[in-house]
Amino acid sequence: MTQGIAKDFSHLFSDECNSRLPSQLKTILPLFADPNLVFLGGGLPMSDYFPWDNLTVESPLPPFSSGIGAKPSGDASDTCKIEITKAEQKSQEGIDIPLSRALQYGFSHGQPEVMKFFKEHHSIIHKMNYQDWDVLATIGNTGAWESTLRIFCNRGDTILAEEFAFSSSISAAEAQGVNVFPVPLDEHGIIPSKLEEILDNWTEGAAKPKLLYTVPTGQNPTGSSLPFDRKQAIYRIAQKHDFIIVEDEPYYFLQMEKYEADPEKRVTKTYSDHNEFVENLETSFISIDTEGRVLRLDSLSKVLAPGTRFGWVVGSEAILQHFLRLQEMSIQAPSGFTQAIIAGTVNRWGQQGYLDWLIGLRHEYTAKRDFCIDTLHKYLPQVDYIKINPPIAGMFFTVNIDASKHPEFATKYESDPKKVEKAIFDKSIAAGVLVIPGNWFKADGQTTPPQPEASSKSEKPNEIFFRGTYAAVALEKMAVGLQRFGDALYEDFQLSK
Amino acid sequence: MTQGIAKDFSHLFSDECNSRLPSQLKTILPLFADPNLVFLGGGLPMSDYFPWDNLTVESPLPPFSSGIGAKPSGDASDTCKIEITKAEQKSQEGIDIPLSRALQYGFSHGQPEVMKFFKEHHSIIHKMNYQDWDVLATIGNTGAWESTLRIFCNRGDTILAEEFAFSSSISAAEAQGVNVFPVPLDEHGIIPSKLEEILDNWTEGAAKPKLLYTVPTGQNPTGSSLPFDRKQAIYRIAQKHDFIIVEDEPYYFLQMEKYEADPEKRVTKTYSDHNEFVENLETSFISIDTEGRVLRLDSLSKVLAPGTRFGWVVGSEAILQHFLRLQEMSIQAPSGFTQAIIAGTVNRWGQQGYLDWLIGLRHEYTAKRDFCIDTLHKYLPQVDYIKINPPIAGMFFTVNIDASKHPEFATKYESDPKKVEKAIFDKSIAAGVLVIPGNWFKADGQTTPPQPEASSKSEKPNEIFFRGTYAAVALEKMAVGLQRFGDALYEDFQLSK
Repeated sequence: MTQGIAKDFSHLFSDECNSRLPSQLKTILPLFADPNLVFLGGGLPMSDYFPWDNLTVESPLPPFSSGIGAKPSGDASDTCKIEITKAEQKSQEGIDIPLSRALQYGFSHGQPEVMKFFKEHHSIIHKMNYQDWDVLATIGNTGAWESTLRIFCNRGDTILAEEFAFSSSISAAEAQGVNVFPVPLDEHGIIPSKLEEILDNWTEGAAKPKLLYTVPTGQNPTGSSLPFDRKQAIYRIAQKHDFIIVEDEPYYFLQMEKYEADPEKRVTKTYSDHNEFVENLETSFISIDTEGRVLRLDSLSKVLAPGTRFGWVVGSEAILQHFLRLQEMSIQAPSGFTQAIIAGTVNRWGQQGYLDWLIGLRHEYTAKRDFCIDTLHKYLPQVDYIKINPPIAGMFFTVNIDASKHPEFATKYESDPKKVEKAIFDKSIAAGVLVIPGNWFKADGQTTPPQPEASSKSEKPNEIFFRGTYAAVALEKMAVGLQRFGDALYEDFQLSK
Repeated sequence: MTQGIAKDFSHLFSDECNSRLPSQLKTILPLFADPNLVFLGGGLPMSDYFPWDNLTVESPLPPFSSGIGAKPSGDASDTCKIEITKAEQKSQEGIDIPLSRALQYGFSHGQPEVMKFFKEHHSIIHKMNYQDWDVLATIGNTGAWESTLRIFCNRGDTILAEEFAFSSSISAAEAQGVNVFPVPLDEHGIIPSKLEEILDNWTEGAAKPKLLYTVPTGQNPTGSSLPFDRKQAIYRIAQKHDFIIVEDEPYYFLQMEKYEADPEKRVTKTYSDHNEFVENLETSFISIDTEGRVLRLDSLSKVLAPGTRFGWVVGSEAILQHFLRLQEMSIQAPSGFTQAIIAGTVNRWGQQGYLDWLIGLRHEYTAKRDFCIDTLHKYLPQVDYIKINPPIAGMFFTVNIDASKHPEFATKYESDPKKVEKAIFDKSIAAGVLVIPGNWFKADGQTTPPQPEASSKSEKPNEIFFRGTYAAVALEKMAVGLQRFGDALYEDFQLSK
């Protein structure tokens, strides 16, 4: 089947995007092809004056047989020594970015040695259904999402987001004067029928939402993962109501086996076969997309380290060129040190070695998730109104509670579930554990969305939840924290063990 | 004299800035002080899974006696070996940022080991006249300026900028729908009387400009540097007409001795005394500021390397907190690799060693500037309508030309100086050298400024200029390029050598 070309979505662009014209200085770029030309055009310092002559990092080496958390022993067999020099001549072509280039101006779209690797990686993981797609370097998904808003939204525009969503993403929209309309969720994420109902009944005359912001895998804060059939349904709704789907996927590679409560029945998948690993991953929105309607935000923050401040956006060339123009006048490019170190590392690991790393990550997070859920079952009150939700991806678990079952719900808490939530939160802190009240993530912030006739009212008005993570601490400490959380619940609900 | 507190400038903030509320998640930060609390609150990956165990860079060591462009020999006497480990315990406290922290989330204001150094450095160079000032890490001045616009300007607002200005800075404003009103320049930069005339006669009822954007030292593209008395006058005008001065100072440390045409009379300043070096630097706007009306953008791009993507903004705490809020939902923080490497380097060099580096930089750029101007005098036509401007700072020289003296001005070029400019540009490219037409930097872009009665019409309507740099290439290549530019002028003006 011949693949098509991305559709034109420029009617959805913001005024800012439309007035961001390409720089006249860019017209001289083709001149660089002439080796005879003496370039006295730009304020580039000579790399002779960069004070770093060389840079070395050590990383473990695939297949990471002692686990991704193991330190490299320093032996050549399991340690990868990455030496990056300033001089171009001493650099391994296609593998390393010489510091003379990495630390210079230029390459706002990302250094070729890095972008080639991640474009190929993207092709291994996702199926692309149109020709003119590309990848563009970003400084991580927080920045990429903020830029996405700048490219599409004017003040007063509306976007759709999961009813509970990462507060920083919602705040970024609200600060820009963008209305965030919440889409109802269940334990699997966005409910397509609800989304369609909202849009079919959108207030006549009111501008339709331009974007749907979603974290499909290991959603923050609910921990849910959107099944394939829902993604297909949502994509059809996006086509029908003409909005862009922005899939923010920092947790994509923290996918796990389904939680099995009986440790005897647990199977530790080994995935010696890389294809099997890849085929078991969730199908992304961008793999469904046939017309360039999806923007995918990928990041190394949860895969390698947050401080890399490196990620990439995938989408149609027509849309990515506007990200590039914005980046040229804001971030310019991700850090050259970051790009040099990442290129040196992943190009030595290779695509298969990088998959080994991701498989190792899956093992680690599966083990942590299992331990966490086991421990929650052990320490939390075993009552039907306190529900533990084992995620199949990401860093977060949630505990949902029917606040109306609290013995003092109608009295002390005046039938207000938020007051129960606050009381449990305070009690947890006093007990020495921090989990976050779900209410903090409610996407109904400071703006007034248009009022479609189909309301987005919750079906479980008395349900509250807490978000915790098994990512941030080691197992022993996690057990201590979860026991404290359990104790706080026992005490607050006046239950006896 | 007791120093005062910064004034409140919140009346100048943008709608966006005012609606960017602090995150509820921030309210938990004080809880971190409790070592007993088990933190299950945030999605932080464990540093055990960061794949880099250690990092080493080599830099030359102060006092850089062989020059800042010299490679370190590898000998301990002139080479600084910087080893940064993942583990906190193995790190030199206050000197190095362990990778476990550098590569983690957090510290959007910059890592303490870096910021402490540059705050102290700032205090050595600049005199601060109010108490509540601070420094905040940025990803460089391009990004910091773009953020400044977001913090102060709504669409339709006006700012002031030098008549000829760095195109990317102007485009950033224009894309945001901000009118850029050009302020007339002479060879020393902004003419205070003209600025005052413009503002005194500002169209009644029209909103006054909120910001003045200026590159006071080694201005891009004109190469001019604003004298102290003009800065004082401009500051007084800023107080009178209530606008913020944004000094964008990437070239600040590329200050030089005044150009002396006679090589025999040239004195190479040695500055063995650091105080003498510091005292010889231009007095900054922020050193004049008594009320937090100045924002200073500093960057390592021209001092160490552009690819660090690291800089800092200096101003009142009250304004900087809004930069921080914006950064938390966009860039998050500069790259952790960058911060770790910079901290390791500058903390080993020390404040005095860093001044040695800056003195070395001054020597290098003085030598390059001298060679460049000597060569221009040698190769350019010696006529009174072609004027070579030797700068005292920065990376750029300009050659100003009275286009009306062109033999075919009235005929072939229809008395349009822009057409002469275009012809010389094309001829230069054909000759094999790239210098940029001044007209490309004209700040009169795509927006319509209000029309104050005092017009900003140029007094030399037929003057054109070209911007070249002596920074980007080595001396021999520079000579070739400048000779080609001279040849293009001889030919175009039909002059004989």
